[in-house]
Amino acid sequence: MKRMLQLLVVLCCLSAVYVAGEKPGIRARSEIHLPDLSGYVTLKCDFHMHTVFSDGAVWPTVRVEEAWREGLDAIAITDHIEYLPRAADVVTSSNRNRSAEIARGTGAELDIIVIRGSEITRNMPPGHLNAIFLSDANQLAVPEWRDAAKASHQQGAFIFWNHPGWERQLAEDKVVRWYPEHTELLEGKQLHGIEVFNGRSYYPEAHRWALEKKLTMLSNSDIHAPLNLDYHVHAGDRRPMTLVFAEKRTADAIKEALFARRTAVYAENRLIGEEQFLKPLFEKSIQIKKPQITIKGKQRVVVQIANHSDIDYHLQAGPEIPEVATPKILVLPARKTVLLEVRGKGSDAVGKRALELPYRVTNVLVGPEEPLSAVLTLDVLFGK
Amino acid sequence: MKRMLQLLVVLCCLSAVYVAGEKPGIRARSEIHLPDLSGYVTLKCDFHMHTVFSDGAVWPTVRVEEAWREGLDAIAITDHIEYLPRAADVVTSSNRNRSAEIARGTGAELDIIVIRGSEITRNMPPGHLNAIFLSDANQLAVPEWRDAAKASHQQGAFIFWNHPGWERQLAEDKVVRWYPEHTELLEGKQLHGIEVFNGRSYYPEAHRWALEKKLTMLSNSDIHAPLNLDYHVHAGDRRPMTLVFAEKRTADAIKEALFARRTAVYAENRLIGEEQFLKPLFEKSIQIKKPQITIKGKQRVVVQIANHSDIDYHLQAGPEIPEVATPKILVLPARKTVLLEVRGKGSDAVGKRALELPYRVTNVLVGPEEPLSAVLTLDVLFGK
Amino acid sequence: MKRMLQLLVVLCCLSAVYVAGEKPGIRARSEIHLPDLSGYVTLKCDFHMHTVFSDGAVWPTVRVEEAWREGLDAIAITDHIEYLPRAADVVTSSNRNRSAEIARGTGAELDIIVIRGSEITRNMPPGHLNAIFLSDANQLAVPEWRDAAKASHQQGAFIFWNHPGWERQLAEDKVVRWYPEHTELLEGKQLHGIEVFNGRSYYPEAHRWALEKKLTMLSNSDIHAPLNLDYHVHAGDRRPMTLVFAEKRTADAIKEALFARRTAVYAENRLIGEEQFLKPLFEKSIQIKKPQITIKGKQRVVVQIANHSDIDYHLQAGPEIPEVATPKILVLPARKTVLLEVRGKGSDAVGKRALELPYRVTNVLVGPEEPLSAVLTLDVLFGK
Amino acid sequence: MKRMLQLLVVLCCLSAVYVAGEKPGIRARSEIHLPDLSGYVTLKCDFHMHTVFSDGAVWPTVRVEEAWREGLDAIAITDHIEYLPRAADVVTSSNRNRSAEIARGTGAELDIIVIRGSEITRNMPPGHLNAIFLSDANQLAVPEWRDAAKASHQQGAFIFWNHPGWERQLAEDKVVRWYPEHTELLEGKQLHGIEVFNGRSYYPEAHRWALEKKLTMLSNSDIHAPLNLDYHVHAGDRRPMTLVFAEKRTADAIKEALFARRTAVYAENRLIGEEQFLKPLFEKSIQIKKPQITIKGKQRVVVQIANHSDIDYHLQAGPEIPEVATPKILVLPARKTVLLEVRGKGSDAVGKRALELPYRVTNVLVGPEEPLSAVLTLDVLFGK
Repeated sequence: MKRMLQLLVVLCCLSAVYVAGEKPGIRARSEIHLPDLSGYVTLKCDFHMHTVFSDGAVWPTVRVEEAWREGLDAIAITDHIEYLPRAADVVTSSNRNRSAEIARGTGAELDIIVIRGSEITRNMPPGHLNAIFLSDANQLAVPEWRDAAKASHQQGAFIFWNHPGWERQLAEDKVVRWYPEHTELLEGKQLHGIEVFNGRSYYPEAHRWALEKKLTMLSNSDIHAPLNLDYHVHAGDRRPMTLVFAEKRTADAIKEALFARRTAVYAENRLIGEEQFLKPLFEKSIQIKKPQITIKGKQRVVVQIANHSDIDYHLQAGPEIPEVATPKILVLPARKTVLLEVRGKGSDAVGKRALELPYRVTNVLVGPEEPLSAVLTLDVLFGK
Repeated sequence: MKRMLQLLVVLCCLSAVYVAGEKPGIRARSEIHLPDLSGYVTLKCDFHMHTVFSDGAVWPTVRVEEAWREGLDAIAITDHIEYLPRAADVVTSSNRNRSAEIARGTGAELDIIVIRGSEITRNMPPGHLNAIFLSDANQLAVPEWRDAAKASHQQGAFIFWNHPGWERQLAEDKVVRWYPEHTELLEGKQLHGIEVFNGRSYYPEAHRWALEKKLTMLSNSDIHAPLNLDYHVHAGDRRPMTLVFAEKRTADAIKEALFARRTAVYAENRLIGEEQFLKPLFEKSIQIKKPQITIKGKQRVVVQIANHSDIDYHLQAGPEIPEVATPKILVLPARKTVLLEVRGKGSDAVGKRALELPYRVTNVLVGPEEPLSAVLTLDVLFGK
Repeated sequence: MKRMLQLLVVLCCLSAVYVAGEKPGIRARSEIHLPDLSGYVTLKCDFHMHTVFSDGAVWPTVRVEEAWREGLDAIAITDHIEYLPRAADVVTSSNRNRSAEIARGTGAELDIIVIRGSEITRNMPPGHLNAIFLSDANQLAVPEWRDAAKASHQQGAFIFWNHPGWERQLAEDKVVRWYPEHTELLEGKQLHGIEVFNGRSYYPEAHRWALEKKLTMLSNSDIHAPLNLDYHVHAGDRRPMTLVFAEKRTADAIKEALFARRTAVYAENRLIGEEQFLKPLFEKSIQIKKPQITIKGKQRVVVQIANHSDIDYHLQAGPEIPEVATPKILVLPARKTVLLEVRGKGSDAVGKRALELPYRVTNVLVGPEEPLSAVLTLDVLFGK
Repeated sequence: MKRMLQLLVVLCCLSAVYVAGEKPGIRARSEIHLPDLSGYVTLKCDFHMHTVFSDGAVWPTVRVEEAWREGLDAIAITDHIEYLPRAADVVTSSNRNRSAEIARGTGAELDIIVIRGSEITRNMPPGHLNAIFLSDANQLAVPEWRDAAKASHQQGAFIFWNHPGWERQLAEDKVVRWYPEHTELLEGKQLHGIEVFNGRSYYPEAHRWALEKKLTMLSNSDIHAPLNLDYHVHAGDRRPMTLVFAEKRTADAIKEALFARRTAVYAENRLIGEEQFLKPLFEKSIQIKKPQITIKGKQRVVVQIANHSDIDYHLQAGPEIPEVATPKILVLPARKTVLLEVRGKGSDAVGKRALELPYRVTNVLVGPEEPLSAVLTLDVLFGK
């Protein structure tokens, strides 16, 4: 027996030349590393998902467990009001609040904010609308979509247009269109936001409308399957999410921030939103380790830049400057430090200079085709 | 616009320094590589799992999708007969065959064999029993467990004892016990198999009983959550499964093989079963690339050994032999080739010799504490 | 003590919920899975690399160990003749064959073919030339490049032009140019091949010249650092390599195949070469599991396609056919099985038909901008 | 052309469903996350490694590049004085400081501290000794080891005993022994430290001697090959390293800390050292997110514990406490948050209580078989 134990120990130790990291069978949460902005916490939220209570494939508690493990702060359960293909097996008619109710129990335990929502599921126009922060989803089960929107509004809900470019709801010409019905909703204060990202799809039209019409930008998974079947979470793949810059980590603060349009899209390693949020988010993510350098003539100096966030930033150099040459392309991988090579051009520059290297961050968009402008600032002492 | 496209291309190519393998968002099946035995195909099966139709957390179709992706051939859906915590929301009373019925549609599409089963869920003794290959699960919903077992038997079902060492059903002394009720079932031909592995637990007592009482050995997941939450499939972690050595890939052939006890346990990189199956499974997995070697005196020669299977084999050397020295421990990682160092001992051996190196495969068990014995055979030409 | 052991076992077992695969500290080879062509074996070769004997950073034995682990069959050690920055520390003047000589010892042990080569390192034109299968590299250390080429040719060497589009050797206009010197070499039978891929760079001009001028296509790493620093091998990243379709796995057979131009480029999940090789390579890689299907009207049927190779194939549909609709884009990931959805168009087709679905394999190039054409053939029984 | 570009974009985007993380071909540093102790920075150092200037397989610059990428702060290059198997090819006789000299150039560029060292390589006793912070390694090339030690000492070097349990240097009885020669060195103040970890080997005897004889504990790689061949860095595998608690990140501060014995061993997810360092290192690594909880009767409450370090901590519960039950085993994976389940025992406790849960951290050793004791403190409000 003792020999057996020893053998086991030998074998275990052999196989357990140990690697830290993701352990099978251990239930754990991975935080998402993104900086907070001044005065706000950066909350990671997904406001669109389904369960067996409409056409999803999981029990509501699963949505909370997934969110907890993936580092989210808040989710909205938004089962369809009108599309109930499991109705023969799952009782939905009596209580449209049921899926969120079940999820809230798990939410309380795991400290995940669960928001009650519903998807008003109609043909285009107006297509699908999510109403979240509902007090009673049952009142949305009415024949007319206008009545459903009105009922949502009366409950103080935050209402947004889902996947405006969804191929199945486009007209034959495949153009993504803003219809008079959307204007009607907007003017009636019954449309507050729009999905710029849904699942793996980005809608540049929605992006433009959000900026033009002052709609809150959203990015949601619209997940139906167990999330791991669609997103390879263990391999670093992430669901799309809405970053909410809230005063604190509460449902009320999220609601306030949504109505105040303090959000950004975070999906497939891209950030999309307003410059006022994305510029500080980028700047607080990176750190030039020792920005004081000395360059003599055409000397080559190497500067280390750390990226503390979970986003890989892709930078493209702006116009050349007369004093130094730097790489045209610079990738700052998530949570790594890279080298920026700076070569003197043998210019006449002497003495101390704060040198601003202009870059565009091509995966951070402040407009549909407009990358964020950023500068990397070095304190250069030019010598002979 | 053209510049924008070029920029995109540059960036994509940059990020797409391309690595083959698991791609996010692509729905794909990974086969499990294990050799077939002579006359049989090695089918990978999981005969124990749950859905929202009892206390599981997924819709039945998910179980088929998971099995397809993970390389399984067959599953049994085995929702509890007696334990129905979702009954207020999911209609189960009218039709206990419903979950398997739903799964079968997806099974037909994905070519996964879906077997109708049920878990008869009682206190110990006799604990929980799975009956699979049922014609009508509704008949098992009876007050007495003996009647449920009898009804299963009358339908020709294959019946096995689940997780015999489950802690919650042990007596206070924590001993895993075979009760008179199990003898009764066995003698009445109403107990055909036993779970030697359930989830992450191995039951050595069940292993011993299987050998003594001629019960079929089973290894099942008993999964309730989405499988990916409990098993890190993307990282190489696998659910436990029952290997069935069947004449062909059909439900009938699986049933025949189960009653004929042609199975093995495959769980957490271990194989457990009878030597008649595991010996050829191991031998067909590995290949000595060039077994003809020449050794002079105390020379050192290196032999390459390939393991074509998905199992890492852990070998421990048996008694030393007089002619050559080889490593005490040899690990043959899944789908890799490793080096076996052979050193001459300067013995008197001359001429050609078929040298049998004795090893024990410590993660392949033919009895509760009994590793498989195996030999690696080299054709050695001893020289001066 | 016994408690200590038990504790260890518990902890080990805990941490060893076991995942098969890459084990730290185990020295192992991973084969590259690519089919053999009729009459030939597909050898994986890298004919361009450096050691400390010129400007590389590793001892020659490291190149063999890397090649063995990565599944290669043959390498050529090609230290520079003229560029010897380590000459103050590493003795190179006396014997230019030394690095290959050292590597050959390890090659013999690990069964890796090590070919003696040298890089003739000159300004453009003619730039850098590799001469491999040399009998004595020392004779290439001569002032005139023409003499070095001549000496190589006299030794029966296979000579190829390295990285023709290397930025540092381009003229100011950045055009990749074929110079009269190359014509001179070609006509003198002193230029046999050309690198279409070098490191991470693809040269479409070289690709075109190879086809026009009947030069053998090559793809090599030109590695200087330890390979793992430039290629993330553990994460699935691979060095570029030249596939050689040789009659057998010997140095002589490789030489014969190189002169006969039976090669293809395999780099960054792309294949580049002649259709006569790439078409069967693709076709033997994939397998339609059950091509016999039945379609009634506008029915939807799913077909499983396995890819047994290590290459992810990216397919783009050709012109639509009248009988069925299939996806525009089809990705066949390496060593996975995926689903091809086939939808009937309700055409008048009846009875059995061999249906050829036209595709272009966009990452398999038979010309500089010309993807391989391929068909997926289904045996369809059209019904009513 | 435009179509070609579009096609490329489509394909790139397809393959670039984007996952952040380790990118092939990007040269990057990954910091090692371990907390600083009060008044000190936690430097990650490796004081034992080889290059082609003795029996290593890489050019000295590679050692710096590896260290930079892996997040180290300092390395010592310690080529053998006496064992020079490459002497026919690499010039070593003239200057034993050469390898460190070459490495220092890269060190200056990458901000890695490179310490000049040598390995005095003798039979046991005294075996191999490393002398680091040498001013001139050439003076160690003398026939008598006592003279080499003396010369090191005169240069103010820090001297330590390498791999005391190395099998090849053990007597026939395989006992790891402290010889009179070691006492002689110790008493002559020519032995300051000892390797408790070397490569993959842990020496409990060395651990005990370090504590008894007040020797500094060291943990080094002794790497000869490119590091990636022995350690699967991309997969999370790490070389052993010595943690130095230094006043600042300079060579001088490291030297001071080494002589003052402010170090710990960090190897294979284990920490070994004195309680005064390991206790705060553990405590600063973890964070109980909301330690204020309320428990009524036998209620179950879940507490989230974050581990901000790169070490997986394995905790085993100490003696039970009367108020609550908690899990026997608790694993805190690196940079994850896990759940601690706390169950009330229905005790008479009422009101607020600071509850100290006793645990042993089994992979943090303050003595050869002595895990660190730690408490998790909760502020519990017991209710009725």
